[in-house]
Amino acid sequence: MKIDQQEQKDNKSMKKITRRDEDYSKWYSEVISSADLAEHAPVRGCMIIKPNGYAIWEIIQKILDKMFKDRNVENAYFPLFIPEEFLQREAKHIEGFSPELAVVTHAGGKKLEEPLVVRPTSETIIYESFSKWINSYRDLPVLINQWANVVRWEMRPRLFLRTSEFLWQEGHTAHKTAKEAEDYTLMILLDVYKKFVEEYLAIPVYSGIKSEKEKFAGALNTYCIEALMQDGKSLQAGTAHDLSSNFAKSFNVKFLNEQGNSEYVYQTSWGVSTRLIGGLIMAHSDDNGLVLPPKIAPIQIVIIPICNSIEDPAIKEAEKIKEILSKFFSVKIDLRINLRPGEKYYEWEKKGIPVRIEIGPKDLQNSSCVVVRRDNSEKESVKIDDILKRIEFILDDIQNSLFEKAKRRRAETNTKVDRWEDFEKCVEKGGYIFAHWCEDSDCEAQIKEKTKATTRCLLFEAEDETGEHFCVHCGKKAKGKRWIFAKAY
Amino acid sequence: MKIDQQEQKDNKSMKKITRRDEDYSKWYSEVISSADLAEHAPVRGCMIIKPNGYAIWEIIQKILDKMFKDRNVENAYFPLFIPEEFLQREAKHIEGFSPELAVVTHAGGKKLEEPLVVRPTSETIIYESFSKWINSYRDLPVLINQWANVVRWEMRPRLFLRTSEFLWQEGHTAHKTAKEAEDYTLMILLDVYKKFVEEYLAIPVYSGIKSEKEKFAGALNTYCIEALMQDGKSLQAGTAHDLSSNFAKSFNVKFLNEQGNSEYVYQTSWGVSTRLIGGLIMAHSDDNGLVLPPKIAPIQIVIIPICNSIEDPAIKEAEKIKEILSKFFSVKIDLRINLRPGEKYYEWEKKGIPVRIEIGPKDLQNSSCVVVRRDNSEKESVKIDDILKRIEFILDDIQNSLFEKAKRRRAETNTKVDRWEDFEKCVEKGGYIFAHWCEDSDCEAQIKEKTKATTRCLLFEAEDETGEHFCVHCGKKAKGKRWIFAKAY
Repeated sequence: MKIDQQEQKDNKSMKKITRRDEDYSKWYSEVISSADLAEHAPVRGCMIIKPNGYAIWEIIQKILDKMFKDRNVENAYFPLFIPEEFLQREAKHIEGFSPELAVVTHAGGKKLEEPLVVRPTSETIIYESFSKWINSYRDLPVLINQWANVVRWEMRPRLFLRTSEFLWQEGHTAHKTAKEAEDYTLMILLDVYKKFVEEYLAIPVYSGIKSEKEKFAGALNTYCIEALMQDGKSLQAGTAHDLSSNFAKSFNVKFLNEQGNSEYVYQTSWGVSTRLIGGLIMAHSDDNGLVLPPKIAPIQIVIIPICNSIEDPAIKEAEKIKEILSKFFSVKIDLRINLRPGEKYYEWEKKGIPVRIEIGPKDLQNSSCVVVRRDNSEKESVKIDDILKRIEFILDDIQNSLFEKAKRRRAETNTKVDRWEDFEKCVEKGGYIFAHWCEDSDCEAQIKEKTKATTRCLLFEAEDETGEHFCVHCGKKAKGKRWIFAKAY
Repeated sequence: MKIDQQEQKDNKSMKKITRRDEDYSKWYSEVISSADLAEHAPVRGCMIIKPNGYAIWEIIQKILDKMFKDRNVENAYFPLFIPEEFLQREAKHIEGFSPELAVVTHAGGKKLEEPLVVRPTSETIIYESFSKWINSYRDLPVLINQWANVVRWEMRPRLFLRTSEFLWQEGHTAHKTAKEAEDYTLMILLDVYKKFVEEYLAIPVYSGIKSEKEKFAGALNTYCIEALMQDGKSLQAGTAHDLSSNFAKSFNVKFLNEQGNSEYVYQTSWGVSTRLIGGLIMAHSDDNGLVLPPKIAPIQIVIIPICNSIEDPAIKEAEKIKEILSKFFSVKIDLRINLRPGEKYYEWEKKGIPVRIEIGPKDLQNSSCVVVRRDNSEKESVKIDDILKRIEFILDDIQNSLFEKAKRRRAETNTKVDRWEDFEKCVEKGGYIFAHWCEDSDCEAQIKEKTKATTRCLLFEAEDETGEHFCVHCGKKAKGKRWIFAKAY
């Protein structure tokens, strides 16, 4: 029986992935399983991040962590458990999170006197500490980040995009003035998150402010970056919250200012999570499987010597190429001799490795190799002497091409809409809808109810159109700037 | 009132730490608070790791992570929650952990059908996956690690040493043969853990095998490294478990061997945690506060220009020195002008920075600076031209000196004991007791009951003494090798 399983597994390895246009959701799951990134855990809603998936998370962490530290943010670690009472201190916060909480009622063999909540986010427990840490203006700003797991109970789990437990970073800062906090929020959103997602993940994002309904429970303002997925839905890829003094008042976080008066601090919080990996998968992958931008790929180049034995000269050549490239790139040689070259090509393709190098007998004769791009399948023969320079160019070109392609895809599906019937049609078609809106939460709820589309944000760069404008849905008066709407993950 | 608090804080910053010989436990707490490493959380038993403490953990992570990856271990991430039933499948495992479990009974606004345990360790949930991942001998070995938080409910919490939640890494491997698993366990213990703790943390450790009673719940054998603290108690600094096929049988982790037969895998698991930081603090710190070995210090050198304004030429000189040293070391300049030099010296001393460089007017004239070692308070004047070479030597020397000092301390307190009355006296004195023991668990329990001392391990290098030997406690016949005993954290 076990032998049958092995055979099935071998055959499965050459099995085609479901096409995007056939069943997008199935395609997504199959891209993940065929690249061996993650799987559902035996605990409902939870996920196992497998080594290939976790390696992507480690690269995300490494880059972002450096960006934070370059901005004087310090890492710390706060407890997993939060007394229920803490969450209740900020009325909107508990209201927003209470349906999603996991609660520990028993520990150490006893019923707890007060139940403990598994952190859904850590504002409350961190700001309780801030109230002790901060005394004077000299203690400010406080700039803290933590890399942690959080739990928000999920009824409709989806690998990476929506899981009951996920990994993230959460930044928490305290400032002297409202302006400093607001500026800091925008700096994190634009100089860190937007820059990171566009430059490294090669995903163009829209940035702006969330509506009242969509903002973080307890914030004054929530700013976000939104990324378009290939099925026309939007993914909120990161958020930064200007918390004003809302939490400071609930947790009594005060400082003595230069004039000797006691004031509440102004705070920000901001986070990105493992759902970025979901966005990464959906933004670039194709019907052959995962496509990774070179800057985020744990393995950037795979070298496949075409050989039947481990003494084949192609292996020596492969090792020579690896040595040249390894100084600058992450390179793997596939030395397995129990697989045919075609099987290997197929496997690395599904795993999204940006560049494949093949070395056959003919290449050996010519002191060259064949270089194949994952993003567009283009093949070319490259002299070994030129390999470093050429690979450098190709990786760079793949990174840029993926970004430009995603940007074109977004531009093609963007639609300006002024009439409700067009709005409904456009939601079906997918992509971002630019429309005037009355900014009323009830109207927004009705739009969602009718179409499943939500306001994603009001773009920072939205033009202020002249003349009179009316809400695309209810017809009430609207301001000059159009909001963007889309169905969202 | 807030101004009073600030003044109190300033005075506090010059307050002496309780001496070790006065109150060791108070000294430990004060070393931690005065170096600003961690504090107790509002949730009983939990800890907040502050930036200074977390920076040490990040260095530990970075070094160990590289050591694991150099050995082909891959990182992954498994869920925080484990179905209660999983733990019950391995009888000894659930028996060992059940008093310490935290249990989630409600989530998403509902009572769960099956309670979820917050992982105390992840053997069960990981091996459930292994049973799906492993089919053939070609899939082996599987070498997985995860960096994660775990929860073991703690009645007598102690920062870093014993907390209800702690951070750790847990390695989990599966192998074809019993011998491969055993060898792997020992390789991790000796080539990774022992090497890391001795070379980087500068703490000499004893390594050996645990007694039946002290081994991991569910293991065939547990191997450990044990470190002596300054109060004469031992700290278990890391463990590696040979799990044999115990868990493989409970979770049906089988593979098809080269002959086509189905066999259970042989497994290992191994971990070190944030308690290493507790050990680090206790191993080297003195009555003036924290002492950090250079290889693990987030800041290795602090430069203090003695100046009253930010235009003082001492600052320029400090920056010049920083530039020279920063290429190889982690350097900080203390530019605060609201503190006196003495206050600054005192602060950095308490924070354990290995080397302090002072630059005063006289030093400026001589193109020199004063270098002060944290470990032995030695001061010397060094020419700026020689600074790099000298600092290199000094840091190296501090690292070695701390290790040698700790080794001498251990050697001085080691005692060979053959009579029970001497055993009891020696336990009071502290340090490791080398004694013959009958290896009977009941006898071991009685020794613990009477003296609080436990078997720490049977050293790998224990000599096999000739002649007849008898248990130091019960007088029954014992083997030729002496076990080591001590009170332990």
